[in-house]
Amino acid sequence: VANPGPRPGEQRKDDALAILGTRHADVWVATASPDGEPYLVPLSLGWIDERIVLVTDPATATVRNLEARPRARVAAGGPPDVVLIDARLEAVTRLEAAAPDLLEAYAAQADWDPRVSGGDLVVLVFAPRRIQVWRESDELAGRTVMRDGRWLV
Amino acid sequence: VANPGPRPGEQRKDDALAILGTRHADVWVATASPDGEPYLVPLSLGWIDERIVLVTDPATATVRNLEARPRARVAAGGPPDVVLIDARLEAVTRLEAAAPDLLEAYAAQADWDPRVSGGDLVVLVFAPRRIQVWRESDELAGRTVMRDGRWLV
Repeated sequence: VANPGPRPGEQRKDDALAILGTRHADVWVATASPDGEPYLVPLSLGWIDERIVLVTDPATATVRNLEARPRARVAAGGPPDVVLIDARLEAVTRLEAAAPDLLEAYAAQADWDPRVSGGDLVVLVFAPRRIQVWRESDELAGRTVMRDGRWLV
Repeated sequence: VANPGPRPGEQRKDDALAILGTRHADVWVATASPDGEPYLVPLSLGWIDERIVLVTDPATATVRNLEARPRARVAAGGPPDVVLIDARLEAVTRLEAAAPDLLEAYAAQADWDPRVSGGDLVVLVFAPRRIQVWRESDELAGRTVMRDGRWLV
């Protein structure tokens, strides 16, 4: 298929929102320890009210890293259709204390329902600060569609 | 398709090597800045003589992070078929100074040939230290197939 050329920003935003709204999708979540050790795991994605919502075990390196520094870089989609999000952790809530509506929305999108899986879990809510969207190298220019938490398109 | 149950370690190693040998595959490469800012980008994979080989622009955050701390966590494959590698940077070489055999092998596997793409590029060679391989949650036990640079299976 011939490359149709770079997408305009508005289309990249729409395409990114479609990827973030995909059901049963995992994202790659990168965090770092206080001394700069990179960590990376796949987690089931919730995208709810323009927030990234993840649910995981509080004993994981991801949660430990976020407690020390509330920053993650999250990759959705997959090469060559890439959505990369620099995100700030807004809240960590024990599953039992999380808002029922949030858990309902998460379970509807993710490929599992943490309310029935049992075990010790926390809900992580992240605000996107920067979002970059590109496919081929001709889309590297103009790849930033959100900066400082505001859509540019 | 019914889950056939967890794969034995030897099969996980074979499956991981098949994923790492895939042509035209990208990997997700997580690094961290010295003050603990996570970074994550997709790069074209070379898997040559049990080393991860990547080629990128020396002005990127990935290279800057690696110069400060020679550690990356690299994800190959995609959920639910995951290969996660904690890797140590062994060498950074300017493209012009890299071994011709290495560049030939890289170009044969990756989806581009850095020798013809032009621009300022460096070749990054990483030794895997730990490799984890799993699909479903029933494979989380036994997911480590390499530790301290040695295959366990």
